[in-house]
Amino acid sequence: MIRTGFQVAARLGHRRALPGGPRVLPGLSPTSAFGSSVDSLVSIFCPKKTDLKDYALPNPSWCPDMLSLYQEFLEKTKTNGWVKIPSFKSNKDHLQGFKLPSTLAVTSDKDDSRLFTRCIQVEGQGYEYVIFFQPSQKKSVCLFQPGPYLEGIPGFAHGGSLIALVDEAFAKTAYLAGEGLITISLSIRFQNSIPLGSLAVMNIDVEKIEDQKIYMSCIIQSRDQQTVYAKSSGKQVLWPQFLSCHLYPQSKQKGGG
Amino acid sequence: MIRTGFQVAARLGHRRALPGGPRVLPGLSPTSAFGSSVDSLVSIFCPKKTDLKDYALPNPSWCPDMLSLYQEFLEKTKTNGWVKIPSFKSNKDHLQGFKLPSTLAVTSDKDDSRLFTRCIQVEGQGYEYVIFFQPSQKKSVCLFQPGPYLEGIPGFAHGGSLIALVDEAFAKTAYLAGEGLITISLSIRFQNSIPLGSLAVMNIDVEKIEDQKIYMSCIIQSRDQQTVYAKSSGKQVLWPQFLSCHLYPQSKQKGGG
Repeated sequence: MIRTGFQVAARLGHRRALPGGPRVLPGLSPTSAFGSSVDSLVSIFCPKKTDLKDYALPNPSWCPDMLSLYQEFLEKTKTNGWVKIPSFKSNKDHLQGFKLPSTLAVTSDKDDSRLFTRCIQVEGQGYEYVIFFQPSQKKSVCLFQPGPYLEGIPGFAHGGSLIALVDEAFAKTAYLAGEGLITISLSIRFQNSIPLGSLAVMNIDVEKIEDQKIYMSCIIQSRDQQTVYAKSSGKQVLWPQFLSCHLYPQSKQKGGG
Repeated sequence: MIRTGFQVAARLGHRRALPGGPRVLPGLSPTSAFGSSVDSLVSIFCPKKTDLKDYALPNPSWCPDMLSLYQEFLEKTKTNGWVKIPSFKSNKDHLQGFKLPSTLAVTSDKDDSRLFTRCIQVEGQGYEYVIFFQPSQKKSVCLFQPGPYLEGIPGFAHGGSLIALVDEAFAKTAYLAGEGLITISLSIRFQNSIPLGSLAVMNIDVEKIEDQKIYMSCIIQSRDQQTVYAKSSGKQVLWPQFLSCHLYPQSKQKGGG
């Protein structure tokens, strides 16, 4: 049942792509997300109490570096305004706090899906990561420890596993920072491979919000910043721009766009 | 034991990065890979008989579109020179056919790793894909069916799962086409999301080989080409260039590089 709404949006997207061809389909309500403040988005998106399992919590597979830096940032959530973004099994769970219009209602008749970056369930085997967000500075830090199932060249994380997590971290940060959610484009430049089981620290910044788009950058390094693993940049379309082109194509036409 | 060789290469890479900062570490021998023809690379990399499990074979989860297009390309392997690239559990398996120098010897004391794009073992749940390569035209076609564990927005494949597979398809194609293996950079522009369980067709082309780099492009579409999901480009450094900078830094210095 639930997917119907998304499929409607997808079809609209196919009929009338945004200039430059953005990706279609978020699942948030215009009535709840349109024009919301960062604080209100954070309060809905990062509930302090929930029955849902949060996968962004320490487990025995975390290396000492990952654990100690996690504790450092956890302290910052108490004093410096940082927020730990919870990580649920599916984006459907993240959307539960939002009031959705009937055409985009999120109600699945089966629950066999998982968020890609949480696809491997055995602790330490795949993605171990946690994202902390700084609302006033509109930036994030993601702690990433790739497990042996993310391998590319033997002993090292697959470049694709890193790009995928950059995309995910961009999406979560962009939504909280400016209601961006749909990745339009992403570029990455690799410099060194990340050894499996070690910690990589991703610093994500919102560079600017302009022309209904949000521009992001990310540098991925070792904790001591002596090794740069990669640098990335990405662009997301804002939710209001998506809506105006995809859900209300006629009004968009009237507006001359 | 085996990882020692790769770690040596990694440290060399950290000390002396290529101009522009490429990613370090392949695991192929200079004596076997340097200057090899496409045909000889294909014959080693794509063995017709092996005891290793090939994950790029049809299974009951494949949708009819995926299965029928697979059969079409399989016919082309018999008449048109196309080659089906096998897909093993790990890149270590792909390297078995190569004679490696002792410093890069691939002999693992444990076997707990998996190639990222084969990380989910239940058929249909994660990545289902197969790559066919055309040696004379230096291009590939990758058939991709994302399962429910690759989800991003509910009902659709995570953009990161697509980028990761593009990276993997670029790497395999670049190696066979011109001894490229190490991704330096990758860009992607999204246009539409891929519905979970459906077929996406990735057409990968080698655009040029120049200045010790191999330039790739990829368009990802529905089978009928009516929907473009994304377009991507990437750049790989050639194995000889990697060697000259990372394994023989002194000779590189003498050469003025």
